Amino acid sequence: MKKTILIFIFIFLFLNLRTYTQITDYTKYVDPFIGADGGGYTFPGAALPSGMLKVGPDCNKLDENAGWDAKGNIVGFSHTHINGSGGGCKFGNILFMPTVGEVKPLDYTSPRANEYSEVGLYNVYLTRYKTSVRLSATRSAAIHEYTFPETDKANVMIDLGSFLSSYERQEFVGSEVRILSDTEVEGYSRIRGGWNIGRAYTVYFYAKFERPATSYGTWKSGQLYLNEKSQFDSNEKTGAYLTFDTRQNKTVKVKVAISYMGVNKAQYNIKEIPSWSLETVKSNAVIEWNKILKQVKVEGGSEDSKKIFYSSVYRIFLQPNNYKGENPLWASDKPYYSDYHAIWDTYRATHPFINLLQPSLGADMVESLIDIYRFDNYMPDARTSHDNGRTQGGSNCDMLVADAFVKGVKGVDYKTALQAMIKNATVPPGDDERKQGRGGLWDYNRIGYVSTDFERCGTRTLEYSANDYAIATVAKGLGETAIYEKYKKKASSWENLWNPEIENMGFKGFIWPRKSDGTWVDTTKFNVFASGSLEHPFYETFSWEYSFYAPQDMSRLIEKMGGKETFINRLDTYFTKSFPGKLGELLFYTKLVGMCQISNEPSFLNPSLYCYVNEPYKTAKIVRQILATQYTSGRDGVPGNDDSGSMGAWYAFHALGFYPNAGQDVYLISSPIFQKSTITLENGKQFVIIAKNADEKNIYIQSCLLNGKPFNNCWFRHADIANGATFEFVMGDKPSTWGSNGELPPSMSNQK
Amino acid sequence: MKKTILIFIFIFLFLNLRTYTQITDYTKYVDPFIGADGGGYTFPGAALPSGMLKVGPDCNKLDENAGWDAKGNIVGFSHTHINGSGGGCKFGNILFMPTVGEVKPLDYTSPRANEYSEVGLYNVYLTRYKTSVRLSATRSAAIHEYTFPETDKANVMIDLGSFLSSYERQEFVGSEVRILSDTEVEGYSRIRGGWNIGRAYTVYFYAKFERPATSYGTWKSGQLYLNEKSQFDSNEKTGAYLTFDTRQNKTVKVKVAISYMGVNKAQYNIKEIPSWSLETVKSNAVIEWNKILKQVKVEGGSEDSKKIFYSSVYRIFLQPNNYKGENPLWASDKPYYSDYHAIWDTYRATHPFINLLQPSLGADMVESLIDIYRFDNYMPDARTSHDNGRTQGGSNCDMLVADAFVKGVKGVDYKTALQAMIKNATVPPGDDERKQGRGGLWDYNRIGYVSTDFERCGTRTLEYSANDYAIATVAKGLGETAIYEKYKKKASSWENLWNPEIENMGFKGFIWPRKSDGTWVDTTKFNVFASGSLEHPFYETFSWEYSFYAPQDMSRLIEKMGGKETFINRLDTYFTKSFPGKLGELLFYTKLVGMCQISNEPSFLNPSLYCYVNEPYKTAKIVRQILATQYTSGRDGVPGNDDSGSMGAWYAFHALGFYPNAGQDVYLISSPIFQKSTITLENGKQFVIIAKNADEKNIYIQSCLLNGKPFNNCWFRHADIANGATFEFVMGDKPSTWGSNGELPPSMSNQK
Repeated sequence: MKKTILIFIFIFLFLNLRTYTQITDYTKYVDPFIGADGGGYTFPGAALPSGMLKVGPDCNKLDENAGWDAKGNIVGFSHTHINGSGGGCKFGNILFMPTVGEVKPLDYTSPRANEYSEVGLYNVYLTRYKTSVRLSATRSAAIHEYTFPETDKANVMIDLGSFLSSYERQEFVGSEVRILSDTEVEGYSRIRGGWNIGRAYTVYFYAKFERPATSYGTWKSGQLYLNEKSQFDSNEKTGAYLTFDTRQNKTVKVKVAISYMGVNKAQYNIKEIPSWSLETVKSNAVIEWNKILKQVKVEGGSEDSKKIFYSSVYRIFLQPNNYKGENPLWASDKPYYSDYHAIWDTYRATHPFINLLQPSLGADMVESLIDIYRFDNYMPDARTSHDNGRTQGGSNCDMLVADAFVKGVKGVDYKTALQAMIKNATVPPGDDERKQGRGGLWDYNRIGYVSTDFERCGTRTLEYSANDYAIATVAKGLGETAIYEKYKKKASSWENLWNPEIENMGFKGFIWPRKSDGTWVDTTKFNVFASGSLEHPFYETFSWEYSFYAPQDMSRLIEKMGGKETFINRLDTYFTKSFPGKLGELLFYTKLVGMCQISNEPSFLNPSLYCYVNEPYKTAKIVRQILATQYTSGRDGVPGNDDSGSMGAWYAFHALGFYPNAGQDVYLISSPIFQKSTITLENGKQFVIIAKNADEKNIYIQSCLLNGKPFNNCWFRHADIANGATFEFVMGDKPSTWGSNGELPPSMSNQK
Repeated sequence: MKKTILIFIFIFLFLNLRTYTQITDYTKYVDPFIGADGGGYTFPGAALPSGMLKVGPDCNKLDENAGWDAKGNIVGFSHTHINGSGGGCKFGNILFMPTVGEVKPLDYTSPRANEYSEVGLYNVYLTRYKTSVRLSATRSAAIHEYTFPETDKANVMIDLGSFLSSYERQEFVGSEVRILSDTEVEGYSRIRGGWNIGRAYTVYFYAKFERPATSYGTWKSGQLYLNEKSQFDSNEKTGAYLTFDTRQNKTVKVKVAISYMGVNKAQYNIKEIPSWSLETVKSNAVIEWNKILKQVKVEGGSEDSKKIFYSSVYRIFLQPNNYKGENPLWASDKPYYSDYHAIWDTYRATHPFINLLQPSLGADMVESLIDIYRFDNYMPDARTSHDNGRTQGGSNCDMLVADAFVKGVKGVDYKTALQAMIKNATVPPGDDERKQGRGGLWDYNRIGYVSTDFERCGTRTLEYSANDYAIATVAKGLGETAIYEKYKKKASSWENLWNPEIENMGFKGFIWPRKSDGTWVDTTKFNVFASGSLEHPFYETFSWEYSFYAPQDMSRLIEKMGGKETFINRLDTYFTKSFPGKLGELLFYTKLVGMCQISNEPSFLNPSLYCYVNEPYKTAKIVRQILATQYTSGRDGVPGNDDSGSMGAWYAFHALGFYPNAGQDVYLISSPIFQKSTITLENGKQFVIIAKNADEKNIYIQSCLLNGKPFNNCWFRHADIANGATFEFVMGDKPSTWGSNGELPPSMSNQK
């Protein structure tokens, strides 16, 4: 009897131990290199979630938006990077580079081999110096491990004059360096400009080496000063080097911490890495990333799709970055996130994904936007290096506020947020209207649309309308009826650019640029396929595509397009006909599915629009086609600029089987690729998506139960899943009538 | 014979030596304390001309715009100050304070005695600590000399949490401190806000003590950390103290250098003071100041008037400050001057005085404005702590460009300056329209005046008109005919606010606030004596006074007022009738001569306006009355806020006998107070003003010769004196007809 009990206890303990030790390491599915090549510009180095410091390689080629490029030499390893931006460079500050032999401040780059990365680890071999490099990171500190050949001249170069500068250039402002001892160096690099045309920012650093250097020196403007310990700031590029003897011990380790406050703070931040074990730092990164990744457990899909999926989720949480305690502009107890780069990209899917998995993080980000409004004039449409800029289309920070609001995200001062939104809608930003707020606002508020007197007149009008609905949404929720009514009315402003006379491919009515006197731009001067950059009426898209953009009022848009059947035909045409415009104009959407530029954000919602006419099987078909053909686990596996995880978020949502209409309490169902996905919400409740039979062929939903009851809408609300829920889909290889008789998703025009 | 020759040689040498040794020290006439009290807010500490560092006392009373106040305790001695501003505080950074006994970071202020200053020296005795303090300064470094009682606890407190904050508050952002050794401390203080609502700025410092401290410590948020050498930046107030033993040697000296770049640069800047002799630093300051002061030699006036005169010239050159090599925002080879505080005050007299004495300095300042436009969006109307803001009325930087241009100031890129001026006139600043550019520009360019929809509508309209004439002036000179024509036309915009129906004291026609629909503000809601601050139609003035403001077109204004006689009567009334408005409204002009608020800049040109109707004796009379009754050599000797030397410049010009119409090639003659003034121009030529018989009674010009020839105009051009000239006035105690038949000064309407 006693023996039996003991055996049971043993078995019990053993099972528990097994459970404990078998915690899945989801980071094994993450490859930070996915999307680094082929225009994805993902960041392949090491970083924590929202990590202020992002340590990785900088390469001397033009395509170096995240520092890395497939070609060219490695310049060194800097500590600040942006993920996925296709715009001009930012960051690339505080660059370290191991070299061997003579110290050459102007010539130290190296070819490379054996380059790969994992969560919390970047690895490369520098062939010029026969030196291996491994990097890992905490929130604001990095550890570098260099394995040199045996030499008495193993150098570590610290170049404070280096920064990313391919185009839309950053400009050098100044730098200082000071060797404090034979194991310590500190200083700063000060840079301005770049993508957001930002004011000067200063990255301070403190570096601590594991063992003493045998000699050292500094440089200024390329001129070496042997044994000189410091260089002051005369607006010139400075640097320092420490030389080590690696004949006995080939390894040189250095910890580097950064700060936006000062060198003492950087020295404080280095405490994030107490030991000299790179493995410990990496393990910590794996633990931190697993805290997020384990919130979504997917089963019954290919290993490759899991790799793409978890790498996508990884990139969603890589940025914006947490700068708490690192704000050199004002003192505040509020959260401080930066590197919104840009919200035009991320409001659509990235932030809704964050609000789904980690609403407390979403709250901190919105609180941060509000604090930026309080102390720095406007909520940003984009912000990096502590300065707002630059706007792409609307004031889409409004969408972030509304998205958090409708999803019940707690801990946000929505009253102040509403003031900030109203400022966007009423106070022209002036001067550089690409910086913040709403350019062309005078027109918009006076004549109901942004006229051709202003750049991006089409994009701005459409997005301001959607943004106004976001304002109305929050105002309504706060009981501000007058504000609600006012902005609900303004949310129809896009209709002022609806030109019913324009006809193309048999469809009538397109969004069209309009002059301030009310007349339309002549069709000889503009066509439905024309697009361009910031100066163009349609920013990074074209009328055919952006004529589908009225996310706040799809029912009205469908009506304007001629009703359900015409709308479906028009979407079909959009997804199947080849783009007939000039390819030379296609700067931003070289990857097309039909005319849909799936490589850029303006297309993001369009595959889901069939849900607004209860034809979800068509959404399933096009979404599955894009997922299967445009995303891979290769280094060029992202179809467009990842844009701070935007491409990743599009993939992640659709892989789970739904996609948000951002700023509204609506998820539109598409087609789950995994047979089971279990999302553990922040409140501990589980949101389970079962997709029986789901595979590459069984892409169509045949039936659906929600919490065991038949569910026939092809959309659902956040409230439906916020406290846990189970969707049970049965998938098949033929379109079904499921969803065709459900309630339509809400649109402004069909709501009270 | 030989003996005679030798004697002659001796006499010759002796005379030469006498000449050499008798070089006048004009700084003996300068008392930096003139105007420090009574609302003048002059800076009484030590500084070089345009010195970036201005070391002086900060007092814990509300009236501490320049740090100093007559009442309250001395808090300590900080290194950055503004001269003469009546607006909210700026600066007061990096505060040092000697104390004795226990170290108390939150309680160390002291009453004072024996406080005085000279050029390059500030002196005070701290009664709480029985300690004497002497301060002197170079461009970016200071030397402090503390004479303690005999004690083993003589402390020097370094408070990086201290800054001036009476109203329109500066806000604390952060600070760091680090004790490098027993003789060295460095760190920074970071502040935002204040008068210009500026972004955060950082003042770095490096301090070197003459002898080692016996103990030390730091603090954060008031909490002491004995023996702890550093405090990092956590947005909290930090500080450090060093304790000395003064039982053998009562003197503790410390050099303190500041920088806006970094601590290494501050350490570099300390080389400006090579020795430990405060006397040497002071002597150097005297030499530097004499280089300017000796350019004007005045003779035949009272000692008191010389004291007022040279102290005035001193203050003209005290600010804006030279930040060359200290720009943390961009790298540029151009000059970098800042602390334009504000150009609304200084364009009228201060900068014209600089252009007269030191056109190369004037050129550097305009070049600096252009560089600010290039890299920081707009030329400033005011700028301090590396940020523009805040505008008072027009975009009066335009006046600085025009003033330099018409006076032939070389070395300015006038083509780019014209672009910058046109930006002011065409690109609305947006958001905070008090920051830069032209607020209400939309109205001004659309309907020809700034309507009551915008604040300061009256002041803005009038000044934009004058600014537009400045643009026209430069455009004309550069051969840009179309621009010239356009802006000449716009320079008449002030007429759109001329309301011919308003009548007061028998005079018809006043400048009046107007609504955007073209109707006038009702007389029941507005009157000719109403004034206020930034929100008011008339900024710091009232319609009666500012109806005289059309400096670009006095002939047209005189015509609108009803012709010469009415104009004279109206000016007479203005200078003689008591102000009948409510005194409570007179926030900014408590010192009045009749209705003329001589204590503020909007009145500055008005005493000279009689010259526009050839009645110069009336100008002489009122100017002499103001000089004699409103300016003294006392600490309250300036009638209003000195505003970066504005009051000083008004005095200095009129003491010499003329006054500029800024931005135009016109000096209007008033009444010289010295019997001879010799101005040595920068090109070495002499501009001599002889005023025979001039004294307190002989104030009227009876006759005039220019270079020996009769001169009957009551005005002259810069070209008349730019290569040297001699005016010979004969003065008498009765008005004469001199000047009554001369050519009228140029006005826009009577020019081709």
